[in-house]
Parts: sequence; C-alpha cells; structure tokens
Amino acid sequence: MAESILQTINSPADLRRLPAEKLTQLAAELRRFIIEIVATKEGHLGASLGVVELTIALHYIFNTPEDLLVWDVGHQAYGHKILTGRRDVFHTNRQLNGISGFPKRSESEYDTFGVGHSSTAISAALGMAIASGLKGEKNKQHIAVVGDASIASGMAFEGLNHAGVTDANLLIVLNDNSIGIDPSVGALKDYLIKATVGHKPAQANIIEALNFQYFGPVDGHDLPSLLKVFEKLKHINGPKFLHVITKKGKGLQKAEEDQVKYHAPGKFIPDTGELLPYDTTDLSLKFQDVFGLTLVELAEKNEKIIGITPAMPTGSSLKYMMDAFPERAFDVGIAEQHSVTLAAGMATQGFTVFCAIYSTFLQRAYDQVIHDVALQNLPVIFCLDRAGLVGEDGATHHGVFDIAFLRCIPNMSIFSPLDEVELRNMLYTTQENKPDGPLAIRYPRGRGFRKEWELPFEIINFGKGRCLKEGTDLAILSFGAIGQNAMEAIENISEKEKIAHYDMRFAKPLDEDLLHTIFQKFRNIVTLEDGTINGGFGSAILEFAQRNKYFVPVKVLGVPDCFIDHGKVTELQEIAKIDVSNLSATFISLLK
Amino acid sequence: MAESILQTINSPADLRRLPAEKLTQLAAELRRFIIEIVATKEGHLGASLGVVELTIALHYIFNTPEDLLVWDVGHQAYGHKILTGRRDVFHTNRQLNGISGFPKRSESEYDTFGVGHSSTAISAALGMAIASGLKGEKNKQHIAVVGDASIASGMAFEGLNHAGVTDANLLIVLNDNSIGIDPSVGALKDYLIKATVGHKPAQANIIEALNFQYFGPVDGHDLPSLLKVFEKLKHINGPKFLHVITKKGKGLQKAEEDQVKYHAPGKFIPDTGELLPYDTTDLSLKFQDVFGLTLVELAEKNEKIIGITPAMPTGSSLKYMMDAFPERAFDVGIAEQHSVTLAAGMATQGFTVFCAIYSTFLQRAYDQVIHDVALQNLPVIFCLDRAGLVGEDGATHHGVFDIAFLRCIPNMSIFSPLDEVELRNMLYTTQENKPDGPLAIRYPRGRGFRKEWELPFEIINFGKGRCLKEGTDLAILSFGAIGQNAMEAIENISEKEKIAHYDMRFAKPLDEDLLHTIFQKFRNIVTLEDGTINGGFGSAILEFAQRNKYFVPVKVLGVPDCFIDHGKVTELQEIAKIDVSNLSATFISLLK
Repeated sequence: MAESILQTINSPADLRRLPAEKLTQLAAELRRFIIEIVATKEGHLGASLGVVELTIALHYIFNTPEDLLVWDVGHQAYGHKILTGRRDVFHTNRQLNGISGFPKRSESEYDTFGVGHSSTAISAALGMAIASGLKGEKNKQHIAVVGDASIASGMAFEGLNHAGVTDANLLIVLNDNSIGIDPSVGALKDYLIKATVGHKPAQANIIEALNFQYFGPVDGHDLPSLLKVFEKLKHINGPKFLHVITKKGKGLQKAEEDQVKYHAPGKFIPDTGELLPYDTTDLSLKFQDVFGLTLVELAEKNEKIIGITPAMPTGSSLKYMMDAFPERAFDVGIAEQHSVTLAAGMATQGFTVFCAIYSTFLQRAYDQVIHDVALQNLPVIFCLDRAGLVGEDGATHHGVFDIAFLRCIPNMSIFSPLDEVELRNMLYTTQENKPDGPLAIRYPRGRGFRKEWELPFEIINFGKGRCLKEGTDLAILSFGAIGQNAMEAIENISEKEKIAHYDMRFAKPLDEDLLHTIFQKFRNIVTLEDGTINGGFGSAILEFAQRNKYFVPVKVLGVPDCFIDHGKVTELQEIAKIDVSNLSATFISLLK
Repeated sequence: MAESILQTINSPADLRRLPAEKLTQLAAELRRFIIEIVATKEGHLGASLGVVELTIALHYIFNTPEDLLVWDVGHQAYGHKILTGRRDVFHTNRQLNGISGFPKRSESEYDTFGVGHSSTAISAALGMAIASGLKGEKNKQHIAVVGDASIASGMAFEGLNHAGVTDANLLIVLNDNSIGIDPSVGALKDYLIKATVGHKPAQANIIEALNFQYFGPVDGHDLPSLLKVFEKLKHINGPKFLHVITKKGKGLQKAEEDQVKYHAPGKFIPDTGELLPYDTTDLSLKFQDVFGLTLVELAEKNEKIIGITPAMPTGSSLKYMMDAFPERAFDVGIAEQHSVTLAAGMATQGFTVFCAIYSTFLQRAYDQVIHDVALQNLPVIFCLDRAGLVGEDGATHHGVFDIAFLRCIPNMSIFSPLDEVELRNMLYTTQENKPDGPLAIRYPRGRGFRKEWELPFEIINFGKGRCLKEGTDLAILSFGAIGQNAMEAIENISEKEKIAHYDMRFAKPLDEDLLHTIFQKFRNIVTLEDGTINGGFGSAILEFAQRNKYFVPVKVLGVPDCFIDHGKVTELQEIAKIDVSNLSATFISLLK
C-alpha cells in the first residue's frame, strides 16, 4: 500500500485538502483501520464498514462542523469519529474513560447530537436547521443520515411530516441497506427495495408526496457519484432527500455474508474476518436465551402465547420462537409504540402476549404501557432484557429507569429474577398462575449464573419474596440479579452470620408480609437494585416503612442520580457502588 | 318530525333491522340527540357530529360486536355510544359514575378498545385482526376509524407499516376533515387535501405504496355511498383503506363555521348553536393563558425563545405566541416524540425552547426527554399543562404520573406553581437564572386563584421552597397548586396555629436546607401532591429523610395506586382524599 493518507487526516479540513482521486485510497485505509481495531477491541462493525465512502464524501463536500451532520443511531459513525480527530484514541472505543461507541456532544464538536436510540436524527437536524434559519444562516446545511430500518419508525415519520412543510435546509440521507441489526421489515421496506441505483421505486414516490425533493438512488460505495450528488445538493435549499444504497459490512466478505452476526461480531481475525473461537463450555447461558428457549417450550403447550419484538429478534432471542412458531411470533421493526398497543389488541382477544423489549427501549412505549395495557389491565408480559447497567453501550442504553417509571403505573407488576432459573420459572408461572394484568420481567444483559438452567418448572409464588440467607443484625433486600453481588459480598465478610439476605423478587406488588417480618426483626436494612435510587425499588421499601411507621434505618443502594457512561458492567457497578467490593464495605460499616 | 326511530334502537341489531331508506331520518335524529344533550351537559361536540352517517353505516353493514370496531381517540364516539345501548344514559356522559366520554372496554362490549390518546387504533385493531386470524376467524372484520390529524402521528405510521405486510382483515377508515382539535398540519395533510370525493390525491398513493388496497375518497355524509362501499369492503380480505371526507360539526352551522371552538363548546342553545354567555369578570385567568401570554411577553424581549406544541395550540395557549411570533412558534401536529427532539435540536443551537405538552401526552415522548434532552443537559423547558387530576376527561387524561417518571431522570428539574403568579415568575426565572439543563413546569387544568396575575416579574430562587404559614406541631409540605387545598383546609381548623405550611415549589432539586429545618422542628409531617404517591414528590421527601436519618412520621398524600375515572376535579380529589375536607380531617387527626 502507498504511504498512509489516513495518518495525515486529523480533521475534515485535512480531508478537504486532498484531491478527489486520493479518496478511494483513503476509503480503503479507513475500512482497514476500522476492521483492525474492532477485530481486537470489539464493537459495532458492519454499519461503519457500509458507510465508509458516504462518510468521506459527506465530510469532503460539506463544511463540517459548520454544516451540521447528525448520524442516526450512531452504530455507523466509527469512520466519522476517525476522520474528525479521534483516530489515535479510537482504540479506546467503548472502554471506561475512552471514547463512546456513539456520537456524543461532549466528545467532539463534530458530534452535533448524541445518539444511541434510533430515529432521532431527522427531528434533531430539523431543529438545528430551523434554528439556523432563525439566526439568518441561510446557506448552512443540516444533514441527517438515517438507515432504512430507522426511517420506518414512527418518530422518523413525524420528523418527515413536519420537515416537508418547512423551508429548512435539511438533507436526509437514507442509508438503505435493507437491514438494521436484524433484516428490516415492514411495508416501507418492501417499497424501498423496489429501488435500484438510478431508478426510484416504480410506484410514485412517498418521499416526494411528503414535499421533499428526491434524489437518487445512488450507489453508496461509488465515491465519484456521491461527490457529484452532494456537490449538487449542497447548493439546494429546503428539504431534500437522497436515497443511497449500501451494503452493510462492505469490504469484509464474511461481514457482507452474515450481516447479523457481524453487526457486533466480537473478536475476529482482521484479514479473513474469521471469528475467534472462545470456549463456552463452562459459561452459563445468556438470560436472553433462557427467555427465548423457555418461551418456545411454553408455546408448544399453550397456543394462546404470542411473542412480539420491535426489531430485536436476535438480541432478545425471540428468534427461537419466530423459527418455531412463525405465525405467533412477530418482529414489527423499530416500532416500540406499535408493538405494545399491538400486544394490547391481541390480549383483548384472549391471547397472552410476551413483548420482548430492551428496558431502555420500553421508554419509547411508555404511554402505550400506561394507556393501552395497564389502564385496561390486559395480560401483556413485558420481557425487559438489558435491564440495569449494560456496559459498553453506555449512557444511552442503560436500563436503569424502568423500576421507577413502571412502579407508578396502577395494575402493573414488576418482577426481576435473581438468576436464569428464576426467569424461567417466572415465565412458566405466567401460564399457571399469571397476574390478571400486565407484568414486567426485567433481567440483565449477558450470561446467567448457573450451569443447569433447564430444571423442571416451578411455580413462583406471585408477589412473594424469599429468604436466601438468615442473619441477625442487618437485612439485605435485593431486587433481581444484582442480588448476586450481595451474595458474594456477604461471603467475603467474616461476620456474615449477622447478615440476612432476602431476594424480594417483586418491586410491585411488595411482599408486605415478609417486609413486616424484616422490619420487626432487624436494626439495619439495605435495599439493593441496579436501577435509579430515585423512585425505584428502595423507594418503594421506604414508602412501605413510612406507611407502617417503621423507623428503622434503611440504606438505599442503586444507580445514583446521574447518567453513567460506558465501560465494563463491573466498572460501572463500581461507580454506582453496587459492585461486590463496595457492597462488602457498606455491609461491614453497617454492622458496626 | 316523524315518530322517533332513534328511540327504537337499543343495539346495532335493531339498527340493522331498519330498511336503508330510514337511515337518513335516523341520522337527523341522532345528530339532534347529540346536540341537545351536549348543549346542556357539555362535552365534545364537533367530532361526533361529523361522523353521524359514518357511525350508522358502520354498525349497519358490519356485524358489531362480532366485527370489531375501534375508534381512534374517541372524541367522535358519541353516536356509537348512543346506538350501542347507551342512549338513555348518555346524559350522564363524563359525570362521576356516569358513562365515559371515550370508548371504554368495561362499559360495553361494543367498546372494543379504550381510547383517549390519539393514534392507537390501527395498532390495536391490527392486533385484534391477527388474533382473529390465529383463531381461524377468517371472515371477521376489524375496523379502525382514524382522523387525519391522528394518522399523521408516528405511532399510526408504525401500525400502517406493519399492517401492510400482513394478510390481516383490517379496514382503516380515514375520517378526513382536515382538523383534529386544531387544524391539521404537516406534509401528509397537504397531501391528503389534494383528494376530493371520487378522486385520490393527484400524486400516486402513499397508502397503496404501503401495500393497502385504497378505496375512496367518499363523501362521509352521503349514506348511500357509505353503505355501498362498506358492503363491498366487508367481503374483501386483507388490509384495506377507505378515505372518507367529512365536515367536523356537520349539521350545526356555528359548529361547522368555528370548528375549534365547537370541539368542546361548553353550554349552548341547541337550536342555534349560540354559546351561552357566562360572566368571567370575577374569574381568574386559566393557567394555560398565563403561560401563553407570559411567553409572548418574554419572547418580545428575548429572541432566543422558541415555542413548540404538538397539536395543542388552543389548549396550551401557545396560539398567542404563534400569532405574535409565527416564525418562532410551531404546532408540529400530534407528534410528541418529534416535538421533544426537535426542541433538543434547536437547543443545541443556543435557543431556549418551551415545549408545551399536556402532562399525560408527555408520556408519549418519555424516551426523548431522557435520551435527547436530559442526557445532553439541554435547556428545554417542558410546560406541562393539565397536570394532576383533570376532571371529566378521566383516566386516560389525568396527568398524575409525571412527577414519578421525571424525578428519576438525571439533570431534570421539576417545578410546580402554587398559583398563576408563581407560574409567571418561573417562566421569567428561566430567562434570568435558568437551570443549566431541562426543567419541567407542571400546572393544572383550569383557572388560577388570583385576580391580579400580571404583577411585575419576580425571580424565583431556583431549587428553593418557601414557608406560607408558620406553625408548631405539624408541617404540611405541598407541591404545586394542590397546595391551595391545604391552605383552605388549614383555615378550617381551630388549632391552625399548630400547623405550618411549606410550598416546596420543586420536587427536584429538593430544597434540602429547608427540609433540614423542617425535619428538625416538627413531630409530624404531611406531603401533598396531585400525582401518584408511588415514586412521586412524597417519595422524594422520604428518600431525603432516610438519607439524613430523620425518623419523623411522614404521611404521603396524593393519588393512590389505581386509575381514577372521570368526574369533577373536586369529586376526584375527594376519591384521592386530597380535597379540602379530607385534608382538614387528616390534619386534625395528626394534631391529636
């Protein structure tokens, strides 16, 4: 390879000084750079490989950061980060105190808007464009790069619908690769795939109907074409839309061939893309797989079970049910709001609907949970994966608000399993002895704690906690899998016989009988959760105590009132002081 | 008029026994019946008048309740209620223990899905249709009646996008009258108004592009045409879409002429539509108008102020700013999610954005508040009208969850004014001494408490509460305008000198200095809010007390953990035991 161009690019200004004919080499270098670092450091791969040429062309033609560029979701922004001054820190991607895996305003002036959840870019860029108009900056451009899975989400439609009646300098670049994390679904996707380079979908254009000027489709890996069309678009005012067709994983054959796996493949050999094997024989199953496999097992016996996921069949493991019972398992795309009300509609007809949504994404359907499910007391089971601190995805993805935002909803029950067997048994319990209304089951990202998870089903006594360990002085009341940390912390303490540990199982309804026993017996109580201490499980315990006039000291442990960045889960738990070591120290101090 | 047909219709089965030629007379009677009752009992008028023929035609052709009919929003369902067995109780509409102003599952088997918030009908009806398919009910029809303002909301698009790739027996009836509560906005609306009876929009059809069979447009007041098209649609399987053009307020000239006013006009003379005058000279201004007028006053001096409302310019009184500064005030339609992220985008460019959303509708934008505003600590001011118990709109509309669901979000401040002067001063304070991040200001539906609201601006000390009344034994800590009830309750008590009253102003950040003083001085404390006691303001006080090891009895008063139905605000406050009389009794009992 010729002398590195990439090493000379410390900002888009450097990029713009290059002659256009050098850009193809730069694209090759950038792609190679991303592959080599992600191969060893892990992270999101396919999306960034797919937009290498697009990223270069955007920064080459537009005057970033004056022109404002918003990446939707942000999985695809690695090239952007590398070209905007973060090449030499890119190896710290997603690590504690390293750069974020997503665009982040505090990290760079080129990151105009923090992203992570999908479909926000059109609204954000339109807001910027209207603001620029008010400031008299009439030639400034505002660009939202949106994937075809993201643009099908309702929020994106709301942005399009508004933008189309403005004169804002907004350019929407549709990065159309027919896949989000899993393959795109829905009628809009069926419509879009009718487009080929140079030819719009045969039916007349939805986008033009919404008052946008439509350009494309162009081949998103053809740099000269991209440069040409952006040069033209740069001088056109008002809302405009460029349809770009790309291939996710472009340039790494295995990533092109298995786009789902190579969305975030873990470690691999950079030259071949071959995944590095790792020994899972001693590892527990992931919570998500316990959910997915158990649901299939239940659905085999109960034809009234339906499963729904908004765009996370692989991540939630609902794919197992989609394979086994395709007529009863639905990927509805990035449409959390729809997924919940769809579930409610099905539930009115006598079905028990399992809605598998990451905790952080349920925030998108909050009103539907209240207004369509809970108010009508319908039997929808929310299976909230990625609850608690999720690790490397960081602040946008932590599932730490759910206990607080669900606990205030009437009719809602909230369960969290200490381990994967508890998860499995709760899924079973909904069949035998289900609550007569909605239930949220929240469980963490990652693997469980027991090798043997596929034990015979046992009913979980609804609304009842359990004593894991007796003690005399201090009672630990934990909610969910974070209780594992407490178990370990207690083991490390010499006076462990003084410490009792209760797995409360339910944040709502509370096991008031058990709580009366606890509050009458112990002189010190600790509550432990991996959600916000404001309004969460601990807060529910405080409300119980005051209602019943127990004046026992209660220490509420959980996620403090600040956003927690990215890093390993254990590192982030340490920040929240709910890691094993901090817990031991806290327990010891309370025994004094 | 001939003998009443309406009085013979006790169910749609009765309706279906009528010869078709009688339906025109029935329509006239039904319209008259609605007008006469709403004229004296109040309620929503225009929407139901607009769908009289549509309602009759649907129940006449389809086999309700076997075929499942879902009304979106439900403002328009009065005719439906009257024809489905509720004619003789219709005069109890929206009253305590009377029928609900919206379809409600527990009220009638014909109310297949509870509504109130917009844009849920497509998802719900699709869920029902898929469920019917699984049950083998292949000829059953599922009908969603959706307005043109509602269908532009993102959630509706998500439903369309999914439905278009199913074979579900779903009929979407677009009730296109170019108005929601206020006139519809957006590019889709511009597109739809190109349609005239018998002629689709000139550009090819968005709906067909989403895989629906498109029918219409038909005149929604032409009964024979409606019967004919429904008869045809009844026998077509799969997703289909009927575009119906109607006039809101049809049949009452004044309601047709002023559709915004006659959405819910209050009392009027049934024959003429003339509004009954009422003397407002002794009444305080509404909170919403204090917001709207003050914002104009501030915007005159500060060109960085922007106002946004999702489809509530009249209800939020943002219309004043839209009239005064049209370039800086935006009605974005029923698009709460977009409205919040649009605000965030504008805020990144140095603007202070006031986002006026009813408390209950902010639930629709919960993720955007967390992910786009709070996480980036952007100065968006959420002006949450209709916070607390809202009265006759009932369970779907109470703004009682906001304190709990906002309090767990880092960087978020939450203020609630005791009266309209406090609201005004807080709006002013955001200009002079604003928090460096987002702020929610929650205030109730209806009128304030002071004749003189337009006093010289005063800064509110951010994060600080105030003592309204000194006392010796019992401290009342109130949050927001519900504090007025406490003031009155205290006045009714003979030992009032023993009771102190603090207007805490902020649920977040708490005024910890003041709280230390209070917890050190009093032997009994009451917290009072008109939000959920689970996780709300009182819960924040309990968290403070435990953090600081104050073991003082605290009684938390607020909305209990159940959904509260419709009725007068005072009646609903009585149910929650936060009305004046219950408060007096509680305070007295705590003095003993």
